[in-house]
Amino acid sequence: MSTPGTFTVRALLFDVFGTVVDWRSTVIWESKALARHHGWPADRVNWPAFADTWRREGYSAAVGRIARGEAPWARVDELHRRQLDELLAGYSIDELDEPEIDRFNRVWHRLAPWPDAVPGLIRLRHRYTIAPLSNGNFALLTNMAKHAGLPWDCILSAELFHTYKPQPEVYLGAVDLLGLQPQEVMMVAAHASDLEAARPSGLRTAYVPRPLEHGEGASTREPVAPAPPFDITAADFLALATALDC
Amino acid sequence: MSTPGTFTVRALLFDVFGTVVDWRSTVIWESKALARHHGWPADRVNWPAFADTWRREGYSAAVGRIARGEAPWARVDELHRRQLDELLAGYSIDELDEPEIDRFNRVWHRLAPWPDAVPGLIRLRHRYTIAPLSNGNFALLTNMAKHAGLPWDCILSAELFHTYKPQPEVYLGAVDLLGLQPQEVMMVAAHASDLEAARPSGLRTAYVPRPLEHGEGASTREPVAPAPPFDITAADFLALATALDC
Repeated sequence: MSTPGTFTVRALLFDVFGTVVDWRSTVIWESKALARHHGWPADRVNWPAFADTWRREGYSAAVGRIARGEAPWARVDELHRRQLDELLAGYSIDELDEPEIDRFNRVWHRLAPWPDAVPGLIRLRHRYTIAPLSNGNFALLTNMAKHAGLPWDCILSAELFHTYKPQPEVYLGAVDLLGLQPQEVMMVAAHASDLEAARPSGLRTAYVPRPLEHGEGASTREPVAPAPPFDITAADFLALATALDC
Repeated sequence: MSTPGTFTVRALLFDVFGTVVDWRSTVIWESKALARHHGWPADRVNWPAFADTWRREGYSAAVGRIARGEAPWARVDELHRRQLDELLAGYSIDELDEPEIDRFNRVWHRLAPWPDAVPGLIRLRHRYTIAPLSNGNFALLTNMAKHAGLPWDCILSAELFHTYKPQPEVYLGAVDLLGLQPQEVMMVAAHASDLEAARPSGLRTAYVPRPLEHGEGASTREPVAPAPPFDITAADFLALATALDC
């Protein structure tokens, strides 16, 4: 773990999907529960592939188009729903009524935290203002925090700025709402690209790799030794708390 | 206490200054501590009058001008500071350096809750999403929550909409961020005017009078029996929690 150097960090902003919560395990787990509830054959859907497509096409690709100005603004809830409708049609799943589909779409509001996330955040909260800074919409992040017991001091979402990370408006908008200077704020993420986008705006950076984000044995999308280096690299949120004297 | 009737409320939005926190007692208390620290004579400043002017002119009047479009947008921190500078000049107080003035100005980030506020919110939080919806700026509300232990699920501030209550954009903007319908949201306030402004946007209303907001023996600005009636009238947040089955 590298050392934080000498600067006064007052607030920590956290990427959420993958960094704080294990989206993939929860989506697979709830999908399989839904399948059991309806008595579907176990081989009807490859649920890990379903989850990966939902994430990759419904979220990552769609958010990227909006961030680049190639598509009009829409909330992540809506982006998720568009992809879910496509997936259900693709798998010829037509037994779900509207409330069931809506509830399934909101699985992203009910994602489970990594085991170190809540205890780490509780320690970090004593000394720092802590908040998510996610592309997830405001209600999604608020509901997730309530569901998972994430002890945020406030909710910050790209929705407040009607664009998405990695656009600098998101990082600088969050800093401005907190009434701080960029160098007083540290972005925490499991994705080097998020930190590399935050740094030019003046934010500090902490890298917390999550090698299991894409499942056991998946080829991780993150380099093992990211370059350039970040202000802190920590194995999990407990190590981050220790590195930040909490 | 009146009954809530039959509707599904999912979120409670709270006015803050006066409703959740006792701004006047805290401002007077911190002002007197500052005076003692500097060894000022006890009769140099009438601190209750100082606090009342700060609130009335620096906040209420200034926010009103912005809400009516008569003045450009500015954060409450800045409005407070403008009035503080005027007050200090008016009392010929020139011994404070910039960090002391800045810290004094941020007394509004450190206001103490009414005694029932935190225990009431803790009960309400089990069943509802709870958030401030205040004209106070986002950082002020975030810092206040951390200082006072207010267990909000998220922070909602008029700052997010660049206008002030009683403009409908504030109430409807908050409802939209929560992903709810107006009738699923209840505004809680000690000021009938706030509730009367929220109602036409479709929000439910709960009136919690705070007869001591302006001090013992002050002629309260609130009617004893406000009309028209609100969905709920409760003596304090504990009674509100009971009325809302928490």
